Amino acid sequence: MACSRFEYVKSFEQDDSILPNVWIVIRIDGKKFHKFSKTHDFEKPNDENALNVMNAAATAVMQEFRDIVLAYGQSDEYSFVFRKETAAFKRRSAKLLTYVTSLFSSSYVMQWSKWMNLPLAYAPCFDGRVVLYPSEQNLKDYLSWRQADVHVNNLYNTAFWKLVLEKGLTNQQAEAKLRGTFSADKNELLFQEFGINYNNLPAMYRKGTILLRKRVILGEKSRQAVVPLHEDLISSQFWKEHTEILGKYV
Amino acid sequence: MACSRFEYVKSFEQDDSILPNVWIVIRIDGKKFHKFSKTHDFEKPNDENALNVMNAAATAVMQEFRDIVLAYGQSDEYSFVFRKETAAFKRRSAKLLTYVTSLFSSSYVMQWSKWMNLPLAYAPCFDGRVVLYPSEQNLKDYLSWRQADVHVNNLYNTAFWKLVLEKGLTNQQAEAKLRGTFSADKNELLFQEFGINYNNLPAMYRKGTILLRKRVILGEKSRQAVVPLHEDLISSQFWKEHTEILGKYV
Amino acid sequence: MACSRFEYVKSFEQDDSILPNVWIVIRIDGKKFHKFSKTHDFEKPNDENALNVMNAAATAVMQEFRDIVLAYGQSDEYSFVFRKETAAFKRRSAKLLTYVTSLFSSSYVMQWSKWMNLPLAYAPCFDGRVVLYPSEQNLKDYLSWRQADVHVNNLYNTAFWKLVLEKGLTNQQAEAKLRGTFSADKNELLFQEFGINYNNLPAMYRKGTILLRKRVILGEKSRQAVVPLHEDLISSQFWKEHTEILGKYV
Amino acid sequence: MACSRFEYVKSFEQDDSILPNVWIVIRIDGKKFHKFSKTHDFEKPNDENALNVMNAAATAVMQEFRDIVLAYGQSDEYSFVFRKETAAFKRRSAKLLTYVTSLFSSSYVMQWSKWMNLPLAYAPCFDGRVVLYPSEQNLKDYLSWRQADVHVNNLYNTAFWKLVLEKGLTNQQAEAKLRGTFSADKNELLFQEFGINYNNLPAMYRKGTILLRKRVILGEKSRQAVVPLHEDLISSQFWKEHTEILGKYV
Repeated sequence: MACSRFEYVKSFEQDDSILPNVWIVIRIDGKKFHKFSKTHDFEKPNDENALNVMNAAATAVMQEFRDIVLAYGQSDEYSFVFRKETAAFKRRSAKLLTYVTSLFSSSYVMQWSKWMNLPLAYAPCFDGRVVLYPSEQNLKDYLSWRQADVHVNNLYNTAFWKLVLEKGLTNQQAEAKLRGTFSADKNELLFQEFGINYNNLPAMYRKGTILLRKRVILGEKSRQAVVPLHEDLISSQFWKEHTEILGKYV
Repeated sequence: MACSRFEYVKSFEQDDSILPNVWIVIRIDGKKFHKFSKTHDFEKPNDENALNVMNAAATAVMQEFRDIVLAYGQSDEYSFVFRKETAAFKRRSAKLLTYVTSLFSSSYVMQWSKWMNLPLAYAPCFDGRVVLYPSEQNLKDYLSWRQADVHVNNLYNTAFWKLVLEKGLTNQQAEAKLRGTFSADKNELLFQEFGINYNNLPAMYRKGTILLRKRVILGEKSRQAVVPLHEDLISSQFWKEHTEILGKYV
Repeated sequence: MACSRFEYVKSFEQDDSILPNVWIVIRIDGKKFHKFSKTHDFEKPNDENALNVMNAAATAVMQEFRDIVLAYGQSDEYSFVFRKETAAFKRRSAKLLTYVTSLFSSSYVMQWSKWMNLPLAYAPCFDGRVVLYPSEQNLKDYLSWRQADVHVNNLYNTAFWKLVLEKGLTNQQAEAKLRGTFSADKNELLFQEFGINYNNLPAMYRKGTILLRKRVILGEKSRQAVVPLHEDLISSQFWKEHTEILGKYV
Repeated sequence: MACSRFEYVKSFEQDDSILPNVWIVIRIDGKKFHKFSKTHDFEKPNDENALNVMNAAATAVMQEFRDIVLAYGQSDEYSFVFRKETAAFKRRSAKLLTYVTSLFSSSYVMQWSKWMNLPLAYAPCFDGRVVLYPSEQNLKDYLSWRQADVHVNNLYNTAFWKLVLEKGLTNQQAEAKLRGTFSADKNELLFQEFGINYNNLPAMYRKGTILLRKRVILGEKSRQAVVPLHEDLISSQFWKEHTEILGKYV
């Protein structure tokens, strides 16, 4: 048949199966979302609805791929954790990576108009990467790293945009004022100059969003659903309360 | 700072740079598009508008990533060829793979309503893979493999759906009738029973779609544009006419 | 300088650093040792001195690479376990793999004449592979797999060679006699026909050789040395007695 | 059987097949050969016999692995080029890498006493790496890079050791005298101060050693043999004379 003399090219595909018994984390990240958020007029420092689009897209991914035990999102990034034992797509790295990235991307567009007023000006784009963690401690530290990141960035951004939007500082002036300050300084500035207790701001902005599978009551029946939490996952308390994450198949 | 004791987890990311001086092909493929095409009532054997959505999404990818010198699509798949010397994203495999897959996916949703009547019932999903080809011959053979595939499938599908839709055969009966037939037999069947000269059917169905960058005249100016072709790329003629594909940066 | 226009070729070397926090096992295996053992007239079923050459070569490897916490050898193979946290050679896979394989190979030749009467007829050759184990259980199971292997093989070989060398059976006859027998059958055969209690045979033949680092008394001083053991490492007892293996740097 | 519950660990071995249709270069390098050459009293700047040991070991490797079309050695390193189409060991990277490195290492020890007076004080060790080259030009440039390297180093070393051994300069004084000089300066120095025409020194020192397979006449018969050459492989002349290197199977 005509095919056959070309079919040898299939042998150039290389096996990319992931080592067994390690946690598989896939993190997606918005490409040039600074520009994207400007074009679409995101509220500063946080646009609740834009975050809702992210969360809705991530929820769609978790509903499709049952071996994801936890997702964690903040800003324009989302991490998906596949359970250590997953055999989904034979643990082929590119398959797992692209299915998650693709479904997230198409779902983001599908969800957009449910939350946002402006129409999408152009197609959003996300990169994705696979990172492997052998131990529970490594996995917890990974998630803690991302949550510590949102804390640092959000405290800064909250102070920055207050200075710009309410005190009329230029971006450069606000930057200069915050340069070299510690968390305590920024908390104090928010409280003294704007009467804001940072810890009272919405948890979604301060902690990001954790998606877990939970059994929920719907009318008289219970079923599993993906639920969003905005808790402190750096604390050991979180892991005691949600033991299913590190357990076997949920 | 709070971050630092967790930051070690970044060291678990592994380098995935692609070998220099090889053609990089990224092929994306619809996930469960058999069901997807049923849900969205695609015309059989080919839905012109659904193919237009694919082509439009692929065009968006080529417009964004300038180092793609050719794209080739058929059915629910599309291949993108990065020039051998590309340094885009430092040739990091996951970056190239996910940017292409993500932008294709989000663009597919964005383009949908321009061509299709039914609204999207759910988010489409594509997988993607990276395949490397060291020589021009390997690359040509790869593309020929995909084009030979569309020929074989489309001839079969054309005959199959004619039998089902016009002769009222069941799927099983049509399958049985075509089992073991050669191309010549199917050509003959189409001609004898349906008066169809297969070679006169639209080239897009028979050859798939090749996207190339060409300088086009727009009014009084010329500019580069992504143009669709439905030519025979298995022939040497094609490569003589479009020397820019295997040339240096276009 | 003349060099520079060629130096770009260095960029074709690809990073092969091993994922952090996993056990690194390097197993070397004799190439065509069936023929090699015949050429050099190894005693059957076990040649004590040939095993001593293997053990001496492995000891040389452990003395050179301090991050190897355990080595396990049997027949013509040896496994070396690097501690999970090793940073030796930046965890570059090819470096670790080839240093171990190379030093084992050259040491094997160096040690040969200390134990063997016949001179080496030709240079021996070993292949090597890297296998990664994320958990302690995986690592123990790996070593247990190798030790279970020596048990099965050695019991068979012991019975086989007794039948051939003492009862005068041909190889084919011995094979036929043992086909389909269980361990219990072979134990029984050895006892009934040859008066041999398999469990009284030398432990090195039945269990293989485990190399560990131990503090030993030499005269009035103590120092660390590589010591050979022939214990049952499938039992939990072994891991309780030698806690340093899974501990931190020894 | 006892084995089976442990056998799952075999699934942790990962596929490492090399991309088809690329040149496979394996380069081995002496570990700490500066110290090794001191311990064994190598002549400076070049020890003819020590190089002969290297060449003999490399010849043994080429005789064993028939798909190596060329080897190139200088100082304490040797590169082996497998033909692009090789299917040896299913192109498994670790197999190719360790077989070459192991056989080179054991052969080095085997060959030692044929050339050297001092006995080996300890086992030598080599690292190995795999580098892939997609095009003939890349491969030629790789070999040119290594030969340019030997030129630069050997000219320097020749001048350096003349100054130290014949003029009685200390190492530091010789280094200072050569710092910042060009090739022409060092040629001139050798000629003016020592009456040496660098180009008349043995080609093995200036060009390294190229091993090729050639048909040679032995008595009345001809057979294939591995022959050493000390030619300039940077020139196009070399590739015209030895077309079999880039040809099909030799």
